[in-house]
Amino acid sequence: MRISTRNGMGERFMVKSSMPAGAVLFAQSGTPTTVANAALLAALTEAKRKAKVFHRLLGARNGLLGILQEELFDFAKEDPKALEALEICPALAAGSCPYPLRTEADLARAVEVFQAHNIRYFFPIGNRDAMNAADRIGRLAEQKGHELVVMGIPATAENNLAFTDHCPGFGSAARYNATTIMEASRDTESLYTAEAVTVQEIPGREAGWLTASCGLARRNEEDGPHLLLVPELPVNLNKFADLVRDGLKRLGRCVVVVGEGAVDESGRFLSEQALEPGRDVAGPGPSEGAAEFLGHFIEREVGVKTRRNKPGSLLRSAMHWASRTDLDEAAKAGQMAVKHALQGSTGFMVTLVRKSGRPYKCDTGLAKLSEAASGESRLPRHFMNEAGTHIADPFREYCLPLIKGDVTIPLGKDGLPLYPRLQRKLIPRKCGEWKR
Amino acid sequence: MRISTRNGMGERFMVKSSMPAGAVLFAQSGTPTTVANAALLAALTEAKRKAKVFHRLLGARNGLLGILQEELFDFAKEDPKALEALEICPALAAGSCPYPLRTEADLARAVEVFQAHNIRYFFPIGNRDAMNAADRIGRLAEQKGHELVVMGIPATAENNLAFTDHCPGFGSAARYNATTIMEASRDTESLYTAEAVTVQEIPGREAGWLTASCGLARRNEEDGPHLLLVPELPVNLNKFADLVRDGLKRLGRCVVVVGEGAVDESGRFLSEQALEPGRDVAGPGPSEGAAEFLGHFIEREVGVKTRRNKPGSLLRSAMHWASRTDLDEAAKAGQMAVKHALQGSTGFMVTLVRKSGRPYKCDTGLAKLSEAASGESRLPRHFMNEAGTHIADPFREYCLPLIKGDVTIPLGKDGLPLYPRLQRKLIPRKCGEWKR
Repeated sequence: MRISTRNGMGERFMVKSSMPAGAVLFAQSGTPTTVANAALLAALTEAKRKAKVFHRLLGARNGLLGILQEELFDFAKEDPKALEALEICPALAAGSCPYPLRTEADLARAVEVFQAHNIRYFFPIGNRDAMNAADRIGRLAEQKGHELVVMGIPATAENNLAFTDHCPGFGSAARYNATTIMEASRDTESLYTAEAVTVQEIPGREAGWLTASCGLARRNEEDGPHLLLVPELPVNLNKFADLVRDGLKRLGRCVVVVGEGAVDESGRFLSEQALEPGRDVAGPGPSEGAAEFLGHFIEREVGVKTRRNKPGSLLRSAMHWASRTDLDEAAKAGQMAVKHALQGSTGFMVTLVRKSGRPYKCDTGLAKLSEAASGESRLPRHFMNEAGTHIADPFREYCLPLIKGDVTIPLGKDGLPLYPRLQRKLIPRKCGEWKR
Repeated sequence: MRISTRNGMGERFMVKSSMPAGAVLFAQSGTPTTVANAALLAALTEAKRKAKVFHRLLGARNGLLGILQEELFDFAKEDPKALEALEICPALAAGSCPYPLRTEADLARAVEVFQAHNIRYFFPIGNRDAMNAADRIGRLAEQKGHELVVMGIPATAENNLAFTDHCPGFGSAARYNATTIMEASRDTESLYTAEAVTVQEIPGREAGWLTASCGLARRNEEDGPHLLLVPELPVNLNKFADLVRDGLKRLGRCVVVVGEGAVDESGRFLSEQALEPGRDVAGPGPSEGAAEFLGHFIEREVGVKTRRNKPGSLLRSAMHWASRTDLDEAAKAGQMAVKHALQGSTGFMVTLVRKSGRPYKCDTGLAKLSEAASGESRLPRHFMNEAGTHIADPFREYCLPLIKGDVTIPLGKDGLPLYPRLQRKLIPRKCGEWKR
């Protein structure tokens, strides 16, 4: 499970002896988080201080696809005020894409674009796909003799990158999850006199980190949520129905949180199961639909009305309730990526290393990009209780420090958040057309 | 339409000549809001100052059903700290129920309970159903010679009570809606390079106030949401598909907000329509499913992947992002209800009366309970643009003052909100058993 990085600065073979000078490229990738822009801002700020090495600060419009399409923009052309405001800005200001960048042709194209624009430093900000692409681009550049420093900055709400104690982006989503399920649980508690079940669906196809974070809302027996279904632990539906009945008997209500990727004991995604004749929520892989399935299941098996909430993308974009700790750690990761790059390190992803739990102290480290891209972090078994139905104390110890601290959101005259938007005006192309 | 109340204090026939002394009953009813507890706290605080008139301050556990079941609790027995903390507490601390209280037997039972406990003041806090029940209880009490002062305190996120400029509870839900759709729109904007549609479903079966409030997030052409479907304006699905295509062409994305109760041109709820063979989201009345239907419709007709968010009960319980204006107005309504009751008025609901728009000034007034209970407020046509696809300036003028101001949420050592919980220990029964 979670291990501290052992790939520190000691591994000199990954360190370049001479520093190339040239352009820098930042690319955001993967699904958005509330902190990826804070990481970008911190990295930009750090890079600006070394104009002799970093000749030009570029962004890839729409992530990895922006590299292939040679859609690059120059941060120097952006409104300085918009750049400054990037710390408090949800989603990905530079843009992302669902394109995985895996073919040899794609990689070759990326290196071609890097060569054409003399890009010597590449900072991917994102998830495993981003780290994987960056690693492969770095290797191909080396083969082709194009000196390139690659340093990854992790950012994913799903918290499924290995080699880092946790991922920037997770703490804020966890804070939002815990708060909103606390509020929804009070809603359920107050609305109904008799029996009532609320099912809230939380994204996360393979790992249950986000689902587990909802468990923080429960401080005592009365508090919801009462049951958590994480993808790591298959659900016995008969036992589950009994637990719901039991909750209704004891408290008159039951609040259930189900992970998008929850499976039954045969390994089938709950979201794939057709419960009623003709009712089919099947799709490609686990999809939204786990709450819908469970809602119908409970209504049929337990005989009570259910309410279903699916915050979906709201939880990973909830800037208005972000965690200060998370935001600061993302900025630290962004800053350290640039610092390490300046020291000649390449082929790493910055990691977060927990130095102590109480008081919480967190430092940064490094993991090899290749390992970060291939490793995956799932919820350890002991982070859940013995029955597998709720979080256990070790998860609380792990997660609580990450959600702490308010973020002050700048509000406009209309009383709503002011989030900046980059212009992303493209710089002239130097390569030929690219086709998928 | 929205009209200011004309049922002021001038109507003396509704004013009692002598003030009865006795117990006070507060009952929360309808679906929860983030401000109903602030209204309760303000009313309690005001009532405590007149112990000579108000001998005892009782709450009905679980709303109207609590009256019938004679489940009453004494606020004097609650932890004073929990009471003080009620201002910042989501949902309904006293509890609510889905029971409408409409039969003669129910009403007779309610009056029996009022008589047994010498309840002389009744303050319902909630929606139209609550006002209707309170009105009928008040009339029957009068018939039976039980002197009873009834004064309603409005609280509903759906904003569908007539005779009041707006309803406490709406401003906070609107603030949450506008902020989260702003954030979800940025998520959509950043995640996809090509075409992408997000459909967010907003509660509201008959009135489009909550759906319209999402429109505030759009400050310019680039901002989402791009299309709003309110229940008041039937949707031509072919035209809708064209608008989505057009949005994708212009911006590469389209964010759609659909009200739960949106209908097509034949008057059928979108949520009731079976699009695929065997796929049936029909249920009793309009139900969750409008976003699901539209998502499938767009995927089939326009050929792009859709994302569907259904915050459900999250939006009406989002205490963490409540509007200060809304919370203060709810408290004012609660306080004024008690003041008016002390002046001998009965059979009214407190209303909010907008004295001026810029600067925003709001006072309270009174509307007859019978009229408040039977009237319903829907979104005026001119609050939407000519095409009926987005809000118009008059709605902005109307809504923006209501969402203003941050609320500071008390956080625990764990970094999560501290919301109080009442004990609601029941006082001894004096009436016989009640059966539905």
